[in-house]
Amino acid sequence: MVTPLDRKRKIDYQGTARLVEHVIKGGVHAIFVLGTTGESQSLSIDDRKQFVSFVGNAIAGRVPYLVCVTDTSIEDACCLALRARESGACAVVAAPPYYFSPSQKDMVNWYVNLADHSPLPLFLYNMPGNVKVSIAPSTVRILSSHPNIWGIKDSSADMSYFQAVKYLTGDVDNFSMYVGPEELTGECVLMGADGGVNGGANMFPELYVKMYEVASRGDIPEVRRLQNSIMKISTSIYTVGNCPSSYLQGLKCALELMGLCEGGLALPYVSVSDDGRERIRTALQSINQSEWK
Amino acid sequence: MVTPLDRKRKIDYQGTARLVEHVIKGGVHAIFVLGTTGESQSLSIDDRKQFVSFVGNAIAGRVPYLVCVTDTSIEDACCLALRARESGACAVVAAPPYYFSPSQKDMVNWYVNLADHSPLPLFLYNMPGNVKVSIAPSTVRILSSHPNIWGIKDSSADMSYFQAVKYLTGDVDNFSMYVGPEELTGECVLMGADGGVNGGANMFPELYVKMYEVASRGDIPEVRRLQNSIMKISTSIYTVGNCPSSYLQGLKCALELMGLCEGGLALPYVSVSDDGRERIRTALQSINQSEWK
Amino acid sequence: MVTPLDRKRKIDYQGTARLVEHVIKGGVHAIFVLGTTGESQSLSIDDRKQFVSFVGNAIAGRVPYLVCVTDTSIEDACCLALRARESGACAVVAAPPYYFSPSQKDMVNWYVNLADHSPLPLFLYNMPGNVKVSIAPSTVRILSSHPNIWGIKDSSADMSYFQAVKYLTGDVDNFSMYVGPEELTGECVLMGADGGVNGGANMFPELYVKMYEVASRGDIPEVRRLQNSIMKISTSIYTVGNCPSSYLQGLKCALELMGLCEGGLALPYVSVSDDGRERIRTALQSINQSEWK
Amino acid sequence: MVTPLDRKRKIDYQGTARLVEHVIKGGVHAIFVLGTTGESQSLSIDDRKQFVSFVGNAIAGRVPYLVCVTDTSIEDACCLALRARESGACAVVAAPPYYFSPSQKDMVNWYVNLADHSPLPLFLYNMPGNVKVSIAPSTVRILSSHPNIWGIKDSSADMSYFQAVKYLTGDVDNFSMYVGPEELTGECVLMGADGGVNGGANMFPELYVKMYEVASRGDIPEVRRLQNSIMKISTSIYTVGNCPSSYLQGLKCALELMGLCEGGLALPYVSVSDDGRERIRTALQSINQSEWK
Repeated sequence: MVTPLDRKRKIDYQGTARLVEHVIKGGVHAIFVLGTTGESQSLSIDDRKQFVSFVGNAIAGRVPYLVCVTDTSIEDACCLALRARESGACAVVAAPPYYFSPSQKDMVNWYVNLADHSPLPLFLYNMPGNVKVSIAPSTVRILSSHPNIWGIKDSSADMSYFQAVKYLTGDVDNFSMYVGPEELTGECVLMGADGGVNGGANMFPELYVKMYEVASRGDIPEVRRLQNSIMKISTSIYTVGNCPSSYLQGLKCALELMGLCEGGLALPYVSVSDDGRERIRTALQSINQSEWK
Repeated sequence: MVTPLDRKRKIDYQGTARLVEHVIKGGVHAIFVLGTTGESQSLSIDDRKQFVSFVGNAIAGRVPYLVCVTDTSIEDACCLALRARESGACAVVAAPPYYFSPSQKDMVNWYVNLADHSPLPLFLYNMPGNVKVSIAPSTVRILSSHPNIWGIKDSSADMSYFQAVKYLTGDVDNFSMYVGPEELTGECVLMGADGGVNGGANMFPELYVKMYEVASRGDIPEVRRLQNSIMKISTSIYTVGNCPSSYLQGLKCALELMGLCEGGLALPYVSVSDDGRERIRTALQSINQSEWK
Repeated sequence: MVTPLDRKRKIDYQGTARLVEHVIKGGVHAIFVLGTTGESQSLSIDDRKQFVSFVGNAIAGRVPYLVCVTDTSIEDACCLALRARESGACAVVAAPPYYFSPSQKDMVNWYVNLADHSPLPLFLYNMPGNVKVSIAPSTVRILSSHPNIWGIKDSSADMSYFQAVKYLTGDVDNFSMYVGPEELTGECVLMGADGGVNGGANMFPELYVKMYEVASRGDIPEVRRLQNSIMKISTSIYTVGNCPSSYLQGLKCALELMGLCEGGLALPYVSVSDDGRERIRTALQSINQSEWK
Repeated sequence: MVTPLDRKRKIDYQGTARLVEHVIKGGVHAIFVLGTTGESQSLSIDDRKQFVSFVGNAIAGRVPYLVCVTDTSIEDACCLALRARESGACAVVAAPPYYFSPSQKDMVNWYVNLADHSPLPLFLYNMPGNVKVSIAPSTVRILSSHPNIWGIKDSSADMSYFQAVKYLTGDVDNFSMYVGPEELTGECVLMGADGGVNGGANMFPELYVKMYEVASRGDIPEVRRLQNSIMKISTSIYTVGNCPSSYLQGLKCALELMGLCEGGLALPYVSVSDDGRERIRTALQSINQSEWK
């Protein structure tokens, strides 16, 4: 889930409440907040805590709730994990620290400490695009034996990586694998992954839920058909800005145009231009929801 | 196909002939030489030409023959393409120039020139790991309209990229998509790709051919079962060296241990250590070919 | 200045006080805390605030005090800047946000906001090794016209970058340039830079102060002689670990061996091994302080 | 030296002859061809050989002649080295192979082989921007003991690297250090380096020769004054294109505008636009050669 922000970059709590209803109504199996799409790193620790509580209340136990606690300070990460538990979350998710480039040995050190101190089960979050380094498959293998580490969300889009992790943890009980990029949910689930954590589900939850379902039952023609819809979104709405924030600009602008929440971006990102806004509007209008509804 | 080399780093032509028979007997649908696995860049232009002719003769038209002509000099690339045609190849394949980092505009410039001058149809070859830059999906889209550009081999392992290229070229007639990393052939074919160009097929051609076949007919349980065999190879034989050349060291050493060809590596790569050789032997022995034969 | 930590990774305030005295006695012209060497990102916001206050009290106005407020949340960065002012600091320093990769336009957006809201003058901090992107010279030029932006600390070690920034801001009044890597202070000051912000000064403040002085007066033989001492430290104490944290491991271990403060490292970094500790001890013993004292 | 090309990307030999006279008249201490600025990788092996011979004849022993033989095939590199000796060159220069990313062990393997087989003394060429990996300072130390390896040209612009190499090879007899980026010649020579290999000397050889001379005798005010002229060129002529080839586009276009040679670029690079050409003309006109003549 995104973190709705107004034009002054304050959290839009009314929009947040609407968005929670929207995705639950759309059938999502769980809600995940404060990931990369949630612009977590751009929010103050205090805002993050408040947002975690608010969303927990809004969900009110209707679906499982996962909170991303990625931080470069393990104390602040643990502090967020505590707030997550108090807010009804069932698990936390964390990418490696992202300022220093940790070695694999450092990463084991980090995650064992975090898992030992987290009051909730922990999912690893592989995000080399922002963190600069991957959690090596052999490191995931080591960490998967920790009783409080339950799985991984991989946002690398590198399927050689994904397959290696899947193979190396194949004999570990209850170690789950989720994929970040929505363009890959179909094929990952076909290959045996447990699901997707997809930003596009903020807009069209039914589409991504349906992709999961058809892939789960091995319906390849339907997977390919829905893949087309997903790619149409991915190659239009997310590419308008032609800059590092194009995906977020497109997604949040579309949510605003759909009347779900305000579309502000946290610093450092500049808002979408007026021209960009119109192009996103056009892209949005060309999306035909009857393809999956 | 690898380029078999002896301990003095000269081409092992006897081994080359054996390898050609081995993979044709194993059922491959085509033979591709002088790619990254073929250590093309490490061979002299003259050796490359001679090898192209030799393999063409050895194949003798039994399967389609594709030659990689990647080079930083367009003249030398064209010169290799000419030799490829003379040797019975049906197409050439080329990655972008890899010393300078070209802009997307430069890449269009490059590929249009190459396709205009190539006496054979051209396949793009996306290889950001070695080239440093990707051929952007929108650039592939532009190039796909050139009548002499027939498809792409993508070795990025980035499936967001692959899916974007596939979507953007979906309406182009006769534009084919092949995937490099063997760990991905299964899922790519499930999603509609045309096949894999997989290094492991030097050792076990039947395995990769079978993966293509079961994925083509949508047999998901079989895809997942064979994926396991592929990952076993990938996470054992290819990882012994723990260095950039581990994959090539493992593959070529295994081919030597299987009696197919000598296992030398071209400079700059150092040969596998004695200890590494024994570990590869052990890994090889643990592979159970009855899983796919 | 490093942030002294004990073996349980708590701030060693007694060591901090000793270190402040040590560097002031060594003649430093200012004290800079919570930079990369200060492991700022690994500390909680609350620990950072407390440390800022403590050091401000310890300095007690004897030398100018600069606080690094680098953070991915502009609110937390401003909050630290406020604490810096309350603690007697004369300026703050900030690298760009380091999780998302900002465009140059995003960076202008970020720094203008930060400079507008900072209660103290702001120095830019170019640190592409950890941030992943550079503040482009043309961006520095734009930002240098902001009345609350007073200069830049460049830790890129890329002297083409440094010279470009220096040239492009040459006509801006009161825009200062400092260099991070201690290996470069000599040549940068010879070329007209305003000084160095050097981690080695935690151990041997007199050496780096003297380098600044001899370079300021253009004494090339002395610059070259002291450069030798600096390189001896840099290529011995800082390289023992052979991992991303080698520099910090070496520096903090040396400070502990010198009796200045405890030598713990914040997570994710693992502490120096026993063997590494002995090698650092040996390296330290081979340093001859009479070369500069 | 650049490799002059006409609009059809053929070598402009008349321009080459004029350029050789121009730089010799300008006082250069040696001529270096087929480096990165010489677009060597974009030329065919045959064109490179012919160019090496032509320039050797044109120089006719008036100044030392160095030929860059960087190639991914050691045989083709040796073949160029042979031609270099036959053409009167006194040494060859080579970057590491740049398609595969070699490990440091691979690099030692490569350079020892190349130095063993080269008929001329070899200089290492560190060029991480194009090669992707650096020759580690400890690797340079190892290689510096080879009797046929005489020094290094460093084009990293990373002065921490440069200082480390300089310190670690300080006790090796006759191991020379040259710097690539012209923005750094002044400070490197002040710090004890042996000279610069600067692209700008194609246009204004006297400027870079003079910078070497004033830095050699430690005339800091003159170094700073000439640095200003060098930076004016670097931040104007080289930055017009705003793309990876801007430096080459600017340099070659300026040479054409100065009447020295034709200004074509080898593939993959697109030529400068008409607008860019006018902006380079303006930049060129604003350069005041009386600053150094």
